[in-house]
Amino acid sequence: MRPVPTRTLAAALGAAAPGATVRLQGHVHRRRELRAVTFLVLRDRTGLAQVVVRPEEGQQVPPEETTVEVVGLATPNEQAPGGVEVTRPTITALTDPALTPPVELWRPRLAAGLPTLLDHAPVTWRHPHQRAKGELAAASLRGFRGTLDAAGFTEVSTPKLVASATESGANVFPVDYFGRPAFLAQSPQFFKQQLVGVFERVYETGPVFRAEPHDTVRHLAEYVSLDAELGFVDDHRDVLAVLRDVLAGMVAAIDEHAGEAVRRLGLTLPVVPGQIPVVHFADALRRVGADPDEPDLAPEHERALGAWAKDELGSDLLAVEGYPLRKRPFYTHPWTGRSHPGGPWSNSFDLLFRGMELVTGGQRLHRYGDYVTAIEARGESPDAYAAYLQAFAHGMPPHGGFAIGLERWVGRLVEAPNIREVTLFPRDLHRLTP
Amino acid sequence: MRPVPTRTLAAALGAAAPGATVRLQGHVHRRRELRAVTFLVLRDRTGLAQVVVRPEEGQQVPPEETTVEVVGLATPNEQAPGGVEVTRPTITALTDPALTPPVELWRPRLAAGLPTLLDHAPVTWRHPHQRAKGELAAASLRGFRGTLDAAGFTEVSTPKLVASATESGANVFPVDYFGRPAFLAQSPQFFKQQLVGVFERVYETGPVFRAEPHDTVRHLAEYVSLDAELGFVDDHRDVLAVLRDVLAGMVAAIDEHAGEAVRRLGLTLPVVPGQIPVVHFADALRRVGADPDEPDLAPEHERALGAWAKDELGSDLLAVEGYPLRKRPFYTHPWTGRSHPGGPWSNSFDLLFRGMELVTGGQRLHRYGDYVTAIEARGESPDAYAAYLQAFAHGMPPHGGFAIGLERWVGRLVEAPNIREVTLFPRDLHRLTP
Repeated sequence: MRPVPTRTLAAALGAAAPGATVRLQGHVHRRRELRAVTFLVLRDRTGLAQVVVRPEEGQQVPPEETTVEVVGLATPNEQAPGGVEVTRPTITALTDPALTPPVELWRPRLAAGLPTLLDHAPVTWRHPHQRAKGELAAASLRGFRGTLDAAGFTEVSTPKLVASATESGANVFPVDYFGRPAFLAQSPQFFKQQLVGVFERVYETGPVFRAEPHDTVRHLAEYVSLDAELGFVDDHRDVLAVLRDVLAGMVAAIDEHAGEAVRRLGLTLPVVPGQIPVVHFADALRRVGADPDEPDLAPEHERALGAWAKDELGSDLLAVEGYPLRKRPFYTHPWTGRSHPGGPWSNSFDLLFRGMELVTGGQRLHRYGDYVTAIEARGESPDAYAAYLQAFAHGMPPHGGFAIGLERWVGRLVEAPNIREVTLFPRDLHRLTP
Repeated sequence: MRPVPTRTLAAALGAAAPGATVRLQGHVHRRRELRAVTFLVLRDRTGLAQVVVRPEEGQQVPPEETTVEVVGLATPNEQAPGGVEVTRPTITALTDPALTPPVELWRPRLAAGLPTLLDHAPVTWRHPHQRAKGELAAASLRGFRGTLDAAGFTEVSTPKLVASATESGANVFPVDYFGRPAFLAQSPQFFKQQLVGVFERVYETGPVFRAEPHDTVRHLAEYVSLDAELGFVDDHRDVLAVLRDVLAGMVAAIDEHAGEAVRRLGLTLPVVPGQIPVVHFADALRRVGADPDEPDLAPEHERALGAWAKDELGSDLLAVEGYPLRKRPFYTHPWTGRSHPGGPWSNSFDLLFRGMELVTGGQRLHRYGDYVTAIEARGESPDAYAAYLQAFAHGMPPHGGFAIGLERWVGRLVEAPNIREVTLFPRDLHRLTP
């Protein structure tokens, strides 16, 4: 018996000395039986490796997706990935022969409709193109956190179980909490604000829950929110400047840690300009020819603005500031910039990425009295917000923040028609499994 | 009017040139009025700064916790933090005068009982000692992820809304999911295993939910679980080796990024040995004088083992391997090591940190047929696990993983008597706010 060397990863096979004994482990990505030879393409976390099996070697190649260990000789071959293949292999199956996958995972493109993709997610995500989307998400998270860590932010973990559905009132999931009513948090908004009083700059990456009754290509019932909040800002432009750095950091992290995924998908990464172009909401409505009394941008308006930003300003990103105060949550700070017709406007913004809303952010109220007024103006009682309002009664800085939807970000990066294509196990009106 | 310089953070004040005009922003940490002078101690995210206010300057010092901007002269004074204080200040309140905090936050030690601490969490976390615990948690997360990123793991985000309460059956929170029953995930266990088939090595940091009917000092209804799972392991010892590196990385990250918090709390960080000592469950029972038929370690057994590990092995950490198979979840791999009396044992372990269970981990089953057998042996139907079992039917590597409870980790680091003291906004049988 040959001595067993340590494992060689597929991506490192090219560096193996010709004739060296190597040990690979992975899934049978493809089994291709020709007359004179069988090719076993092995897939591990780093990529693909080619194993050549000749009939006289008496080795069985298990069906595709079976996990195997292959011990053989590193043999130069220009045709093989990395320029080296494995010959004279001893193949050991690590599990029972795998069932035939619902779609052929070895084909360069995954030819599967959305239901197949989602129903068989544990298997279809194995396709290198699907997997690449997961790598983009992971690298994006890394860039988000790395940028904020470097800027003096503290990561926090806030509860997803909350006592009241106070932020927006609607679209919350009720939970039976030891026999009492509770709800799943729609965002960490209230908590991150309170924690600005503690850490001054905070971020959180985690799930948020929206009981979205609409079945659209861009909404999920559960998604990953990348939240940041910072104190001692002058206005929402300070928040936007941090957001710019965060997005630049996310793109840089993708480039650094998921470059292979970018190449596999043939993507062009967005260039984040030194300063993100900003347009006032009133000017945005005018530019797309919308009714000046519209309280929000419709998806087609966002697309038109995205096209304009790309064509005229050369930017994939466009911030729309000054959204009508009445359409924003009660904690939104009124507009403090130069006057625009109409209004009242707010110190808040949406960031469009390639013509779709990706981020909502802005400056928040920070005076206790302003909260009481804003809550009462909505016909609600400040008592319902007692826990939250404690922070403001005890002194808070002017502050603001933003939230990026991770799946939307990845979805726009790869220009997926449906956000479910970039979500590992999507949850929506109809889908709760797998 | 003096020109307004950019903000100086408290920790950087010591580097300001004597006589330079500086601008600070923060909370009034303490207002101390003496006959001839008033001291304003300002607190920002980097620490404390001393501002000297003389009566003839006509400046009002707002009450403690009010947020302020101070523009004044950097003036050397050996007694001040960093050796520099601010004199001749202009003080501008950034909000209304703050309400008196429920506890005096400026005192070196926070003199508050647990109910006060928790009821007023948005304010009590501002105390530098409380805040330090949050900094330890943040640095720990950073170390966890950094270690695994470097080891070829991919971060994943899996659903917290699941269709069935299959993992343990009990202690789940029911959710009304668009009129259908759903549950909050007790762990990402099933998902992280499925994703080993995709990414080979995965981790996730996120909330998990346990409807714990017990009111103990070490259980929460919602906590942060640091989960990792990896493929192509020989047995649970490979998992334990990764866990060791992760814990070493967490300690190193605390040292690097939260060193000031460690000093503030006067902590001694644990030394993570190059190899964590391991004892078999059967030997552990014998060592603590427990009944050899005990199926689990009681808290007092864990404490006794922790003391033994510390005294005899000089280690804060001790792994107990081989837990009785019948007490572990159905996906647990049977014991494959050398034989021990009793059993059947499993390839799983608990890691004790200073005498308390911190981590559970081990090798999992990886063959589809073994899952069917294990599930049927519990009198359940494999059909109920169809989504999960897909991954195994389509080929999975031998694999294993672990889960660290973040709050337990920080709790043992600071030796908190109650886990709620290190949790920002704890959730338990009785508490759902703030």
